[in-house]
Amino acid sequence: MIEFSKQKLSVLIEKINSAQNIAVITHTNPDGDTVGASLSIYKILLNMGKKVSVISPDTLPEFLECLPNVEAILTYETQKNDVKSILQNADLVFCMDFNASHRVGILTHQLDKVTAFKILIDHHLMPDENFFDLIFSFDESSSTSELLFHLLRESDLLKYFDSDIATCIYVGIMTDTGSFSFACNRKEVFETVARLVELGDINLKKIHDNIYNSFSESRLRFLGFCINEKLVVLHEYHAAYIWVSMEEMERFNVSEGDLEGVVNYALSIKGIVIAALLKERKNIIKMSFRSKDEFSVNSFAKENFDGGGHINAAGGKSSLTMQDTIEKLVSLLKGLNL
Amino acid sequence: MIEFSKQKLSVLIEKINSAQNIAVITHTNPDGDTVGASLSIYKILLNMGKKVSVISPDTLPEFLECLPNVEAILTYETQKNDVKSILQNADLVFCMDFNASHRVGILTHQLDKVTAFKILIDHHLMPDENFFDLIFSFDESSSTSELLFHLLRESDLLKYFDSDIATCIYVGIMTDTGSFSFACNRKEVFETVARLVELGDINLKKIHDNIYNSFSESRLRFLGFCINEKLVVLHEYHAAYIWVSMEEMERFNVSEGDLEGVVNYALSIKGIVIAALLKERKNIIKMSFRSKDEFSVNSFAKENFDGGGHINAAGGKSSLTMQDTIEKLVSLLKGLNL
Repeated sequence: MIEFSKQKLSVLIEKINSAQNIAVITHTNPDGDTVGASLSIYKILLNMGKKVSVISPDTLPEFLECLPNVEAILTYETQKNDVKSILQNADLVFCMDFNASHRVGILTHQLDKVTAFKILIDHHLMPDENFFDLIFSFDESSSTSELLFHLLRESDLLKYFDSDIATCIYVGIMTDTGSFSFACNRKEVFETVARLVELGDINLKKIHDNIYNSFSESRLRFLGFCINEKLVVLHEYHAAYIWVSMEEMERFNVSEGDLEGVVNYALSIKGIVIAALLKERKNIIKMSFRSKDEFSVNSFAKENFDGGGHINAAGGKSSLTMQDTIEKLVSLLKGLNL
Repeated sequence: MIEFSKQKLSVLIEKINSAQNIAVITHTNPDGDTVGASLSIYKILLNMGKKVSVISPDTLPEFLECLPNVEAILTYETQKNDVKSILQNADLVFCMDFNASHRVGILTHQLDKVTAFKILIDHHLMPDENFFDLIFSFDESSSTSELLFHLLRESDLLKYFDSDIATCIYVGIMTDTGSFSFACNRKEVFETVARLVELGDINLKKIHDNIYNSFSESRLRFLGFCINEKLVVLHEYHAAYIWVSMEEMERFNVSEGDLEGVVNYALSIKGIVIAALLKERKNIIKMSFRSKDEFSVNSFAKENFDGGGHINAAGGKSSLTMQDTIEKLVSLLKGLNL
């Protein structure tokens, strides 16, 4: 049960009321939750008559371009001076869906210089308490977007709610739970969606189609190639992996973002408990891990591949060659005795 | 808003109370909703102390074998005499998730002979009012399983609810909405899931993994083959199709059930509004259609391929050769001017 202290809620309202220039910031490699939550608080503040800007460190993935008011987002990567000046003039900054300033990537240095009051709304573990001035952080929440909805309700800001906001919060919850397949085992997640449908007059199928059914043809064919021809299944170790070379990605004309979700297919085989995707980059192999049940790929990635993440989803890297990385991985999988 | 007449609810309770032998029947080619709803009413009746059997016309797909109490299901295909004798002795029959007796396939003749009181619980259009004695039919419901939950609540039967039932109802809702991607644009769908989580103590991720992440390796590789090598994209008509031959299915060692969901990949391409899957069978081509937005594949299939279904999902057939069926399809797609 997510509960907010009355004192914190009144500071939140007080800071919003007195602010002249508000900035809202997403994390680096922006996903559906950070962008959904940022555009939601942006629109609430706009509906309250505030002056507000939204900033993303880098370019949004194409599938998020369907979000309402996405055109308002300033990208530091391409609009450095505009973003710098907004941050310099801001007297209130909302940090959405990240727990420390380095999570804004190339924008870190600028954010570190900000003297404005900084409010964190987030669901990751261990927020940096020295950096943020007011923290709303609940790791049991499915997503920052869900958390924001509870916060809006408890701080009596739902009177500024509209259909755009319902869409953005829905996208945040949907994408951070893999379309309600994980991290949603609380009744509040579904009660929130019920309220979004009730208040927001939103078209869930259209939103789903916009986010998930907007593959490029080359991305889809590459997915097919990966799962038919590049998948290695080690039934005896309850493990499966897919490896892709730079040459293959060039041949199919796909970028690294197009590999999103591919590792889940390796995990979708009956009896497979751990799955890995190995992506060749210049001088490094990037790795994604997924698991079922109680097996922690967070520990596995941390101990063996200089990475980490969550219990069922983590990342890592290797500076060995692809062939040597595969050999190391297979030998580790063998040793797991799954 | 789904509402039940008090009179119907009291007939329901009266019939259950007086019944000595109850049979529950799924439709042919059983899916998650018909099986989930059937096993739910089965367990409720069992918890009420009733004598009850569950019957499926044919064998369940493997991914449903994880459902609690699935071992109680009798299959007419392999247990003809047992099923006949149960139907002869039954004084009350629940028909779950189908609107007419022919929807039980090879069991139709036996069901037509049944003289017991027949209660329909279903969400398909136009139930056969002459066949069933008491009808609870609401096509706005996401699934028969969701409808059953409302019915249990309104008829004060939730006191017999348990975790098995929560799991089965959840599977019905999840599978009939494509993991909350369509047919779920009502707050009641999500309110129901919230109640299942609250009352049922269920593990949603585990259920999701059991249903969706239990592909056979050959099924997964065949999916990859279909979307990489058998997909034809007609960007100019906003259409895409996949066709598969019997030889290919034999080569990959997959059955028709393994093609479930393949057509959705053709629809997942940006800009594609209609997608088709063409499956070769002896002397006939079976077809699945999917669409986005307002384009009705129900009408398209009805007018051109002797089929029908829902607005965004329908089936059809063709007695032409594969090549001629493809030519007919492409010429129709061209004429749509999408």
